[in-house]
Amino acid sequence: MQLSHLHQLPLGMQVLTLPRSNLRGVCRVVGLTASCASRLSHDGQQRRCLTIQQADQGRQDRQRVVILGSGWAGYTVARQLDSKKYQAVVVSPRSYFAFTPLLASTSVGTLEFRTALEPVRSRRSNVGFFQGWADAVDFKNGTVTIEEAIDDQNRGLKDESGKEKSKEAKQVKKGKTFALSYDKLVITVGCYSQTFNTPGIREHALFLKDVADARKIRNRILACFEAAALPTTSDEMRKVLLNFAVVGGGPTGIEFGAELHDLMHEDLVRIYPELIPLAKITVYDVSDKVLPMFDEKLAKYCMETFRREGIAIKTQHHVEGLRPGPPKDSGVDTKECAHDCFTLQLKEEGEVGVGMVVWSTGLMNNPFVAKALRQISVLPENEVEVLEGGHDAVKAVQWEVKKDARSGSIMTDDRLRMRIQAQGDATDKSQAILKNVFALGDCAILEGTTYPATAQVASQKAMWLAKRLNKNDIEKSAGFSFKNLGVMAYIGSWNAVVQGGSGGNVSGRAAWILWRGAYLTKSVSIRNKILIPMYWFLNWIFGRDISRF
Amino acid sequence: MQLSHLHQLPLGMQVLTLPRSNLRGVCRVVGLTASCASRLSHDGQQRRCLTIQQADQGRQDRQRVVILGSGWAGYTVARQLDSKKYQAVVVSPRSYFAFTPLLASTSVGTLEFRTALEPVRSRRSNVGFFQGWADAVDFKNGTVTIEEAIDDQNRGLKDESGKEKSKEAKQVKKGKTFALSYDKLVITVGCYSQTFNTPGIREHALFLKDVADARKIRNRILACFEAAALPTTSDEMRKVLLNFAVVGGGPTGIEFGAELHDLMHEDLVRIYPELIPLAKITVYDVSDKVLPMFDEKLAKYCMETFRREGIAIKTQHHVEGLRPGPPKDSGVDTKECAHDCFTLQLKEEGEVGVGMVVWSTGLMNNPFVAKALRQISVLPENEVEVLEGGHDAVKAVQWEVKKDARSGSIMTDDRLRMRIQAQGDATDKSQAILKNVFALGDCAILEGTTYPATAQVASQKAMWLAKRLNKNDIEKSAGFSFKNLGVMAYIGSWNAVVQGGSGGNVSGRAAWILWRGAYLTKSVSIRNKILIPMYWFLNWIFGRDISRF
Repeated sequence: MQLSHLHQLPLGMQVLTLPRSNLRGVCRVVGLTASCASRLSHDGQQRRCLTIQQADQGRQDRQRVVILGSGWAGYTVARQLDSKKYQAVVVSPRSYFAFTPLLASTSVGTLEFRTALEPVRSRRSNVGFFQGWADAVDFKNGTVTIEEAIDDQNRGLKDESGKEKSKEAKQVKKGKTFALSYDKLVITVGCYSQTFNTPGIREHALFLKDVADARKIRNRILACFEAAALPTTSDEMRKVLLNFAVVGGGPTGIEFGAELHDLMHEDLVRIYPELIPLAKITVYDVSDKVLPMFDEKLAKYCMETFRREGIAIKTQHHVEGLRPGPPKDSGVDTKECAHDCFTLQLKEEGEVGVGMVVWSTGLMNNPFVAKALRQISVLPENEVEVLEGGHDAVKAVQWEVKKDARSGSIMTDDRLRMRIQAQGDATDKSQAILKNVFALGDCAILEGTTYPATAQVASQKAMWLAKRLNKNDIEKSAGFSFKNLGVMAYIGSWNAVVQGGSGGNVSGRAAWILWRGAYLTKSVSIRNKILIPMYWFLNWIFGRDISRF
Repeated sequence: MQLSHLHQLPLGMQVLTLPRSNLRGVCRVVGLTASCASRLSHDGQQRRCLTIQQADQGRQDRQRVVILGSGWAGYTVARQLDSKKYQAVVVSPRSYFAFTPLLASTSVGTLEFRTALEPVRSRRSNVGFFQGWADAVDFKNGTVTIEEAIDDQNRGLKDESGKEKSKEAKQVKKGKTFALSYDKLVITVGCYSQTFNTPGIREHALFLKDVADARKIRNRILACFEAAALPTTSDEMRKVLLNFAVVGGGPTGIEFGAELHDLMHEDLVRIYPELIPLAKITVYDVSDKVLPMFDEKLAKYCMETFRREGIAIKTQHHVEGLRPGPPKDSGVDTKECAHDCFTLQLKEEGEVGVGMVVWSTGLMNNPFVAKALRQISVLPENEVEVLEGGHDAVKAVQWEVKKDARSGSIMTDDRLRMRIQAQGDATDKSQAILKNVFALGDCAILEGTTYPATAQVASQKAMWLAKRLNKNDIEKSAGFSFKNLGVMAYIGSWNAVVQGGSGGNVSGRAAWILWRGAYLTKSVSIRNKILIPMYWFLNWIFGRDISRF
């Protein structure tokens, strides 16, 4: 195996590119990695890219599928790919898959955090993994530049004097980069939370997209109650601390409100009985209703249930900002800031003091899609299928990734392959697809469809793609089409709303049983299939744990 | 009920002291707190110390026992006190009790974190709780000054611009204080880790005294492996990252080393097979053997087992410092610091590059004991029993808390009551005890004994004290004496060493079964008695979870 050349990047970082080799490892291959004996014998020569070398060795005759992202789309593709035919390598800043429908439950302790995640690296899977961010793609040579991202809270955050470094210092510290070659690339980088540049939201609101977010929310809710229980806290401050705002009336916001209500009225009421009357949950939404994807009847049922549970739903409300500290006219001594609270600025109501804001509205494109995937310098000729413009266009035209005008998402054909088009002001109408690059999940749109950005669509696309790749019949097969299996949402006090894909609405207790059954069935590992009902049972009997650490 | 007077403290903080009232609440009392209806009716008048007022109402005829600390001693006393006779109020910066013998298991994922903790506030207990630090004690009037301490990682750590505040800013931000009256005071504030002022240890080492510590260690171990698995990491750096140092050869250090070994050789070996040969665990101790409280034979068995498992034990080694970054002559590019590592400075070996240092050696007195409990301004005459010096001494003498000369721990008599003595240069030999102040756990020593600072002693003292208080026969009873039930330690690969209190040594697999059985039996809640074996089973079948968040 020959050592490859070093590129000098403009930023001064060294990127080491390895050729896509087909060398067979003579050693027993465990997943990506060659056995230690074999590894050590190569030590002297090639010490800096050990793991990529092993990836190359472990790959044998198989094609390498590099999957960017470990969410619903990426994790599903990686797991479903036939490891006899493909070497799946996941690149993601997060080493696990988060089972998002259960995040709201974990954020209040109905379930333990780890029941909502599955590690990408697993002793029962053959999926390779590098923890990092994709920085750039070289479509011509089939390589992705990856910036490593081992995010350890305890590491590198203190300087010599033991002081914590500032946030900037952490951000400036850019990880080293390396290049990974692919035969097929699957882009499933997902979306970020859209804050619409509302001042203070990014800094002070909490989100609910990851297990780490759920952990922050759980600690914050319980800290608000503990702070309110102190004799030094005034009643005005208590009301502010225990005012919980949820922005966004979609399923995530509604389910979080419902779970928070359950936590308060099933557990906290026994522990802080005097505080519960001061506590308040409000769901804000800009539109005129919540759960827009549900039937009018089910959305109304939800609003009615929330009203009975004492959760306020305020539609047609606009959040204009969030800042630390109490509102000016709240009667809270502004010097009384030992328990920090926040002030939510609403167009309709002015300042509202809150203990916590959970923001669950809107998606914004991943910077990788917005920036890295723009123009394409050189195309890989044999991987391009020109739709309009004739084959000469491959070389003549300056190409760019085709994106949805409104959302900026990657456009794909019905085989989930990335669409490209002639760059610029549309005088050249050339259109093509890249046959070895696929995009799915929240960062992609199948051209001509309006499939929602949901886990269901992502996971169906991923199943379809893995199946086609395994059978190697992408070109011949009928394209992907989404089968709507319905939507469901938990709405508190053991009630849910379920709307079947082919009609058929259920609400109330029966829907709740369907809800729990569905997510228990869909949970991935046997471990979690055992732990989830165990926690449901234990927390029903003994109450949720309220410790913070 | 009358509102009490405000003291002006030198620091400018206002402390609100409430009289110890015997008013009976007319309302149904749930634990400390009166029902909401009653609470709200008092709102107008007394809004700033609602919870203390409720404590006073909820107390009825009972004596109030204020317990400082929620460790083995404090938590046990609080749980065991008869709630018909006493109102137990725990004051602690930590809202839960940590079951310390299982912390090492949680730090590698053999058990989930919450299986090693029990919340002080519980819907099945009558124990009151304030989250705070004791600042000072007024023995004359029977009040403790408490500084609130709601430690929320998400709260107050960002300034207006969204930047994180520096560590100093966090420390300077002192919580507000309030006063809590007591009839009996139980001091169980425990100890801190003793770093012997070794440079860099406080800042860069990890400890194993709390669940939060265990969480940091778990994330750190796995981050080291993930960083070592990156192609951008050199082999030299891999060896540094995967070199784990444990300082202290007591049961905590030994058990952590053993659990880390299990994690590596049962789970990580299947996930990172190529990295395990580079990984190393070393236990350092200044003395000439480990597990000093065990028989020579068992300590040897442990050392032999560790040798077979590949864990190095280096006795008679002195740690002189710890700093971030690789050793100078390690061959690691010092610019290659994206994965920070550390350098341990040893007297015997010089610089050693490490990925993590777990420090588990020695105890140091709690600052509360060292500073707050020094001289006593005025004594409560009716609570003093003069041992030497005649009753006149109560007023004539300037008293101080009697402390152990070497460790600085509080001295008690055999009824665990705090000893006091004439201050100064021992010309006055007056000795006395405070009958309503008790000290136990790691911060106290029963005069004339050499009981070790262990959970077993703390919990036996706590059981004894609660029983005596419940029977109200402290004066009459025989004093406390420790019944040594033996010691045990897990040493890896399903082996343990157990030394019975009355002789009888067991080692190996049988001892491991005893070890697990003992801790399962001693675990507090039914919830944990169910979850602990469940996690043992699931992690045996499916492996430990390796996700970090």
